[in-house]
Amino acid sequence: MTFEETCERIAKFTSDRDWDQFHTPENLAKSISIEAGELLECFQWGPDADEEHLKEELADVMNYCIQMAQKKGFDICEILNSKIDKNAIKYPIEKSKGSSAKYDSL
Amino acid sequence: MTFEETCERIAKFTSDRDWDQFHTPENLAKSISIEAGELLECFQWGPDADEEHLKEELADVMNYCIQMAQKKGFDICEILNSKIDKNAIKYPIEKSKGSSAKYDSL
Amino acid sequence: MTFEETCERIAKFTSDRDWDQFHTPENLAKSISIEAGELLECFQWGPDADEEHLKEELADVMNYCIQMAQKKGFDICEILNSKIDKNAIKYPIEKSKGSSAKYDSL
Amino acid sequence: MTFEETCERIAKFTSDRDWDQFHTPENLAKSISIEAGELLECFQWGPDADEEHLKEELADVMNYCIQMAQKKGFDICEILNSKIDKNAIKYPIEKSKGSSAKYDSL
Repeated sequence: MTFEETCERIAKFTSDRDWDQFHTPENLAKSISIEAGELLECFQWGPDADEEHLKEELADVMNYCIQMAQKKGFDICEILNSKIDKNAIKYPIEKSKGSSAKYDSL
Repeated sequence: MTFEETCERIAKFTSDRDWDQFHTPENLAKSISIEAGELLECFQWGPDADEEHLKEELADVMNYCIQMAQKKGFDICEILNSKIDKNAIKYPIEKSKGSSAKYDSL
Repeated sequence: MTFEETCERIAKFTSDRDWDQFHTPENLAKSISIEAGELLECFQWGPDADEEHLKEELADVMNYCIQMAQKKGFDICEILNSKIDKNAIKYPIEKSKGSSAKYDSL
Repeated sequence: MTFEETCERIAKFTSDRDWDQFHTPENLAKSISIEAGELLECFQWGPDADEEHLKEELADVMNYCIQMAQKKGFDICEILNSKIDKNAIKYPIEKSKGSSAKYDSL
């Protein structure tokens, strides 16, 4: 299945259950944070995470992100590329290569 | 640009800067939580978020999610669809329609 | 200043600014997550955090937690002790000593 | 029980179980974010949270915050008051009264 078809499947899952009423942008933002916490829990005490559990938690975060984009009418590829363009200016290769410093400390 | 090309661009952005050394799965999980918090900040005091700010924060969360999938060798469409399959069993349409209850309270 | 006096100072800070209207339990829960993300950012790329920055972010999380307790009329010592009592049952010393396993895997 | 006695009880709970080895500042920061996500989950779909559940999740966040302070040797009242002092400068009463704007937009 392509990414576009997967996104359509996510939209259909929600509309089939009449969940659109709960999925306001604000509730989706909360849901993304909640699921990000569950993803982080895979690494709570160290770097080794159970792979199957990790897949599910990562999918949950992405699923709500896709729903946020759909709800707001954002084109996912467009917002990703637009942010990469901005990051490329904030983090020029020659200054940021091999450094984890934030752009305002480069 | 397609989603696949966008993902490749994200991988190239990181490798161009030699950031692979910082982007362990654990650090990416922290980064996803951090960015999810920034996304949530758009809604801290109410439902109305600045649209341009929201686009950037959502892109940041998704960018790190894509990097986590790449780092772990996960196929994004596969993990998304596999989780939808599981959710479809947990939340059958007839039982969950119009309800925001968790599956264990349905 | 004692802890009780510090809590009173926090309540006064909010009421002096008429911020009670924004500090609903839901908005405080979002604020705690947002600040927890900023605290986590001190450790985004590794274990060494700037100490002064860490103090401020930890204070921000605790400040909103105290406000949540005040808003809901919870006695902080009571809810802390009541949770420790529950954890002591979930994690008996002999079973959990030296182990980071979750109670349901002990 | 006083707040100070409660904090001592938290320290003893951890040392009794030899958990100090897992409770690095970095792992505690992750734990605070994870528990903040569980607290937020009480409000995922709306403003009404189950009160008993809320008490437990708030206690979990505070418990890890107290452990972070203990681990780093921070005096909780001192860091809270020091941050309130800073906030009082960032948010003077006359400028911030009745407004939820961030200090840099006041």
